[in-house]
Amino acid sequence: MSKVRAHISVSADGSVAGPNQSLENPLGEGGESLHDWVVALKVWRELHGHEGGEVNASTPVVEESVANVGAEIMGRGKFGGGPGPWDDDPWQGWWGEEPPFHMPVFVLTHYEREPLTLADTTFTFVTDGIESALDQARAAAAGKDVAIGGGADVINQYLAARLVDELELHIVPLVLGGGARLFDGLGPDLELEQVRAVEAPGVTHLKYRVGH
Amino acid sequence: MSKVRAHISVSADGSVAGPNQSLENPLGEGGESLHDWVVALKVWRELHGHEGGEVNASTPVVEESVANVGAEIMGRGKFGGGPGPWDDDPWQGWWGEEPPFHMPVFVLTHYEREPLTLADTTFTFVTDGIESALDQARAAAAGKDVAIGGGADVINQYLAARLVDELELHIVPLVLGGGARLFDGLGPDLELEQVRAVEAPGVTHLKYRVGH
Repeated sequence: MSKVRAHISVSADGSVAGPNQSLENPLGEGGESLHDWVVALKVWRELHGHEGGEVNASTPVVEESVANVGAEIMGRGKFGGGPGPWDDDPWQGWWGEEPPFHMPVFVLTHYEREPLTLADTTFTFVTDGIESALDQARAAAAGKDVAIGGGADVINQYLAARLVDELELHIVPLVLGGGARLFDGLGPDLELEQVRAVEAPGVTHLKYRVGH
Repeated sequence: MSKVRAHISVSADGSVAGPNQSLENPLGEGGESLHDWVVALKVWRELHGHEGGEVNASTPVVEESVANVGAEIMGRGKFGGGPGPWDDDPWQGWWGEEPPFHMPVFVLTHYEREPLTLADTTFTFVTDGIESALDQARAAAAGKDVAIGGGADVINQYLAARLVDELELHIVPLVLGGGARLFDGLGPDLELEQVRAVEAPGVTHLKYRVGH
């Protein structure tokens, strides 16, 4: 049975974006440095079609996060644009002409939109909720795992519905002081079991198994 | 120069106590399991005058947290009792007749109280603020380090004042959903540098150097 695996970069105080997120500042104030650890990596740069980059203890963690994943689910914010209905000339997302996903991506949105194919990534816009998105993603993944890529609100909804099997936090030495908080609305009845922790330059990767 | 070292058990969502803390439920709803990892340890049980207990990857972390520490600072909540003025027959704290500190302890409080000695721990009640408590603790520590033991509010005040050298989080697989939050009121201008991460049974220890 394929697994549902969520992974996200988080500040030491548990935020996945800073305050005052906007189109100009999508990760909020201070939030851009949440991903410094990954954008430096060779494996990340390769996914984005670039040369160069580092190999370090984060490398196998990132490789594992994409290995055996057949589809990804993300929120509108991670895709790009919004909120509100899609325009006549709808935004193609943050990800450019050759998005780094290389697999079917399902975007949760309240507003209808036709599927969009850019290079080897097809974005399907799902308006009928998280369970529909997961059903579609599982089918597309054809036996491989499904990744839940964020933002915090999307992951929190899947956690609340007890649809997540594994959750990996990339904990960064940064305090964001608010903004989008992981685990918002959740409490002690969410069962977490620590699976492993990996220390790496500028980040610690902490993986949990999530109870159902 | 002696260091100021803060250490605290924290939930995966960044709380050091659950909601609705009370005298009956000092760590709030769900908060008591924050310390399961440490109360199982032989080194902790020895500090409390008990026999038995486990030795695991957390053991050297706890040993290090008390090694070369000459004094501790804590808030009224960690000492016990309150809020409000001390009664005529003032509370002797949570810690019993033989507190586990075995060193001078400075308790931050708004209300005057004479020092209290229980076994080999003397509690001094400091009413004139965090810098006074730190000065007194440094003097008492006589060249050794000063530990800041919590709660969150005390650690947050010392972090905000840039008086902390090292901060170690014991991150527990638990979501508390509110209650006392570490880093509350702080933001990206707080400089954190990851020093090390240690994976242990039921907890990950994450140590930061804190900038001034």
